[in-house]
Amino acid sequence: MGFDKTGFLKQLQTRKEQIDRSLLGFLPVDVYPPIIHEAMYYAVSNGGKRLRPIMVVEGARLAGIPADSVMLTACAIEMIHCYSLVHDDLPSMDDDDLRRGKPTCHIVYGEAAAVLTGDALLSRAFELMAANASVSGVTPQAAVEMIGEVAVAIGSTGMIGGQVLDLQWEGQQIPFSDLQRLHLLKTGALFRASLRSGAILGGMEAQQLQDLTDYARHFGLAFQITDDILDVCGEEEIIGKPVGSDQKNAKTTYVSLFGLKGALDMARQSVEQCMASLRGFGDEADFLRDLARFTLFRQS
Amino acid sequence: MGFDKTGFLKQLQTRKEQIDRSLLGFLPVDVYPPIIHEAMYYAVSNGGKRLRPIMVVEGARLAGIPADSVMLTACAIEMIHCYSLVHDDLPSMDDDDLRRGKPTCHIVYGEAAAVLTGDALLSRAFELMAANASVSGVTPQAAVEMIGEVAVAIGSTGMIGGQVLDLQWEGQQIPFSDLQRLHLLKTGALFRASLRSGAILGGMEAQQLQDLTDYARHFGLAFQITDDILDVCGEEEIIGKPVGSDQKNAKTTYVSLFGLKGALDMARQSVEQCMASLRGFGDEADFLRDLARFTLFRQS
Repeated sequence: MGFDKTGFLKQLQTRKEQIDRSLLGFLPVDVYPPIIHEAMYYAVSNGGKRLRPIMVVEGARLAGIPADSVMLTACAIEMIHCYSLVHDDLPSMDDDDLRRGKPTCHIVYGEAAAVLTGDALLSRAFELMAANASVSGVTPQAAVEMIGEVAVAIGSTGMIGGQVLDLQWEGQQIPFSDLQRLHLLKTGALFRASLRSGAILGGMEAQQLQDLTDYARHFGLAFQITDDILDVCGEEEIIGKPVGSDQKNAKTTYVSLFGLKGALDMARQSVEQCMASLRGFGDEADFLRDLARFTLFRQS
Repeated sequence: MGFDKTGFLKQLQTRKEQIDRSLLGFLPVDVYPPIIHEAMYYAVSNGGKRLRPIMVVEGARLAGIPADSVMLTACAIEMIHCYSLVHDDLPSMDDDDLRRGKPTCHIVYGEAAAVLTGDALLSRAFELMAANASVSGVTPQAAVEMIGEVAVAIGSTGMIGGQVLDLQWEGQQIPFSDLQRLHLLKTGALFRASLRSGAILGGMEAQQLQDLTDYARHFGLAFQITDDILDVCGEEEIIGKPVGSDQKNAKTTYVSLFGLKGALDMARQSVEQCMASLRGFGDEADFLRDLARFTLFRQS
């Protein structure tokens, strides 16, 4: 199984550009009041990799419907991701001044506006997901099922629950099982919802949907572990934050618990489990296979 | 047109209790992590009047479907109201320590938890609205239309937009037209969405829906004007905040712009417009008529 790294990065870039072309267009422009819409735009145009919306589109493709049919939901999920970053960065939370090398939302617009910008992105996301019900090829039934699932994924027993745990453990050593639970909630839940929501909108049958769910779980772990690894040996200009910040903040990471080699082994294992989850698919799932491998090679 | 004040207050209380019986039951309990769920419970059990969910139920009743069919959405909208209060009270926003005589969410749970509690209530609200699609008598099509409408109402061109304006005008005299726009967004949009969402779930025809929309607009204004009046001549123990706080904070209100008598006249006018909006309805809309009159007599 050769992995054409350059080819895949190019494909990823094409898919990212496809998302970016729609994403900013789905934000309200030239509407009152200007300041909040400017801040929403700023928060979303942050140069992210757009992995989550790419997964929405890929879930839909595997279910047999085109990117256009789920673009509203794909962009909605990216807005949700951006909202979570804006709130996570707040002074009362992680208190981060920089995100991907740019001043965070509350640094530019002030704390009150940043809280409201996150709130507004979240509301807009649900507006877009609801609008996806009217796109041809999608049933209102599927749309409403998808909305419910995303809402659970980002709620108090999902993404927000994970952020709560993150804050609770701040400055303490986290036992491995708790660290894993934290990540499954904080980053895993939204990856899972991304891949599933495209598939649900496309009416994917239960077994395939379960396979994708398993894939997303392992993908999320691989992604988190390599995130921790990048913090140790990434390049500052590429990852957009100071290398070694986890160690400086005494954060428990896969690297602090298992060492660099141990962490890398675990990431490789998770990628293997991604492959195993996709056994029921043919070469139509090659993009997801490469996406999993990519976590091991990514530089940001 | 006699207004049986005592009878109506009793009816309002019965309807409030109907909401309260469901509302807290729709929050996740005994789930991990405990702290966020405790804070969500605290934020929702704040002794509110539950006017918005009562309006959801009433919109549904006028459309011909029972309270049970829209209870998920009614409670969802109350959770949205509670989320907006939690975020409005934050130190970076209005910085309020008390809400209806009780310590605000961030005073009890800290600022980070309060931000996340609001976020979690908003997510939960959309989960419940999506679940309303599976209730008998409601179509997924109607549910998804309702979800889209609520999302717009609470977003950057609705409720959040209003809060942005409120913060922007802080400490300044607000011209009347701007004050009115601010209130139409900050409080009006959610009242409008409340009444409409019940009606939409019940499949109400377009003209009646438009009449209710007009009613909600005038109701929202009457409610806001009498809010300003109560701040001047209400009783502290009943309204749950110090009387005269608007004047102390140099806030522009209907009273500061038009005097007590002028404000009361405007409130009466808005109530008259509520009545006019309901011309197309028979006595089945008497509850809404009394609800409008109630704004003039309410003590909190």
